Amino acid sequence: MSQAPLLLRVLSGETTQRPPVWFMRQAGRHLPEYRALRAKAPDFVSFCLNPEMAAEATLQPMRRYPFDASIVFADILLIPKALGQDVRFETGEGPRLGALPSIESMRERTADAGAALAVVGETLARVREALEPERALIGFCGAPWTVATYMLDGEGREDRASARRFAYERPEQVDALLDVLVEASAHYLAMQARSGAQALKIFESWAEGLPDQLFERLVIRPHAKLVARLRELGVETPLIGFPRGAAASAEKYAAAVPVQAVALDTACPLEVGKRVQAKVAIQGALDPLLLRAGGPELDARVEELIEAWGKGPYVFNLGHGILPDTPIPHVEQVLKRITGAGSR
Amino acid sequence: MSQAPLLLRVLSGETTQRPPVWFMRQAGRHLPEYRALRAKAPDFVSFCLNPEMAAEATLQPMRRYPFDASIVFADILLIPKALGQDVRFETGEGPRLGALPSIESMRERTADAGAALAVVGETLARVREALEPERALIGFCGAPWTVATYMLDGEGREDRASARRFAYERPEQVDALLDVLVEASAHYLAMQARSGAQALKIFESWAEGLPDQLFERLVIRPHAKLVARLRELGVETPLIGFPRGAAASAEKYAAAVPVQAVALDTACPLEVGKRVQAKVAIQGALDPLLLRAGGPELDARVEELIEAWGKGPYVFNLGHGILPDTPIPHVEQVLKRITGAGSR
Repeated sequence: MSQAPLLLRVLSGETTQRPPVWFMRQAGRHLPEYRALRAKAPDFVSFCLNPEMAAEATLQPMRRYPFDASIVFADILLIPKALGQDVRFETGEGPRLGALPSIESMRERTADAGAALAVVGETLARVREALEPERALIGFCGAPWTVATYMLDGEGREDRASARRFAYERPEQVDALLDVLVEASAHYLAMQARSGAQALKIFESWAEGLPDQLFERLVIRPHAKLVARLRELGVETPLIGFPRGAAASAEKYAAAVPVQAVALDTACPLEVGKRVQAKVAIQGALDPLLLRAGGPELDARVEELIEAWGKGPYVFNLGHGILPDTPIPHVEQVLKRITGAGSR
Repeated sequence: MSQAPLLLRVLSGETTQRPPVWFMRQAGRHLPEYRALRAKAPDFVSFCLNPEMAAEATLQPMRRYPFDASIVFADILLIPKALGQDVRFETGEGPRLGALPSIESMRERTADAGAALAVVGETLARVREALEPERALIGFCGAPWTVATYMLDGEGREDRASARRFAYERPEQVDALLDVLVEASAHYLAMQARSGAQALKIFESWAEGLPDQLFERLVIRPHAKLVARLRELGVETPLIGFPRGAAASAEKYAAAVPVQAVALDTACPLEVGKRVQAKVAIQGALDPLLLRAGGPELDARVEELIEAWGKGPYVFNLGHGILPDTPIPHVEQVLKRITGAGSR
């Protein structure tokens, strides 16, 4: 096959005969082989930073399922770590971050963020080496605001209230932190592109709940800066932006941030997706809870998504990460419907 | 003054010279007089069900501030209580609900839900008696799905995942529960209208995260049924629907549910609000975190909202409840800008 991987064709604006498919968190706890591998590492950060283990985790779903794309196994909180903030994952508790370093000390580290996380590049290189050429490899980072919410909160609270409060009450500090994160993320993504990533995804997991002016300031502006900075650094890799929880602002986002695809979340209405697709490729948005539930309703929704969005450039995916207790046959059921085969 | 209260004029489709204004949770913990009153009741449910105390709580912000409307002090979880489910509020923990009664036993109680909660009617009557005629009195209920999430979860978890899971995995049970809640809420709201409520608000606090088919099934359909049932019961009172967290579906909601106003949340973009306003009156959507932060940015956003939405039928409000640690001068700052006076 001389053609580019299906995912890359869609990211270049092509409408393909069937959508390429991959699932957020496809590498992870829903797979017994992942749980066995993960048990061998002392903690989650060590696991992410071990290229052999992280590459193996990345490849596990690719061996089992006919996914069209692979996403490097890593975590959005490696960036704060590279900037000098302590990051720990307490079992069953989520992340806990140490005191926020000074803006100055973090700014000094931004240009080296790629080098500091070179192990992620090594993971990518190993995966690219092992993966068939028709299957694409995706790199990623957390978007500046999402990473900032963890850095400011010290942990992952559901409503991000204290980070949003800071955004109002200490705007200079928050904007300076976002600029640091833009710069560090640009170098981190550039390193990933050099190491074999063929597409890069920017995960804005906490775009929800933001009024117009904050969405503009905390999401659109930093994403646009990050894209511009990447292009300045010579990175031509296609980009997927994921402003999760902000379906009402997805069109505005697509118009303002020059990404090649906008990923849509579970709650994005079909008609909103179509309007976004008039501008760029889209990705999404099967409900992980429906995937877990399975049954004929799952088939019906898969059909509905393909019917509504498959007539334009479309990457089939979930609207949020796959749930750890998702039955493997349900994943196979969806993949069979899309690719003709549930497993490899 | 012979004119109808400003709120009711807007709910009849009129564009008023300035928007009427009230704040979600205006009666509550941000007021020292509320905290003193609340301390006199043994627990939150007893407080809500004591008409003297609840009326006093309702009236406290009306004495202090020039709000155009008052909303009865009550709780959305009085309905499960009226249907026979145990409801407790643990201090600092949120609500805890007992085992879900059988659908049959709850169905038998629906017609009496108004009578079972007659104390809320007594609160309304007391408030209506004390309130100036140019200030409107609002009654409310939780929307069926939102109330169902608490009844199914047994508590208020952030992501409603187990309730959404039930919606997929036990659709008959969830749909039957929604029907019971539609019927009970219709009788409850009808009783409130008879007791002096001049507008009724349906709070869908958990409309977020729902894909098309669930939004249709869990939000639009039960709301439309509830409105139809209220009209069948002879209630002509104007209705405000609040599908919180679903700004991307607000237009669809406004087209499908015949309410007189749609309340919009903090994250609703200005342009989406304008599109909804082409169909019905709108209410919202100042960020409570910005109200708490105060300063010139608060003034700027108030101006922006009035500029964008004040040219059509518009009720000024927050996009979510006022936060307990909101400084009173910030509330006065907003009210002064809108009504010309910060306090009474």
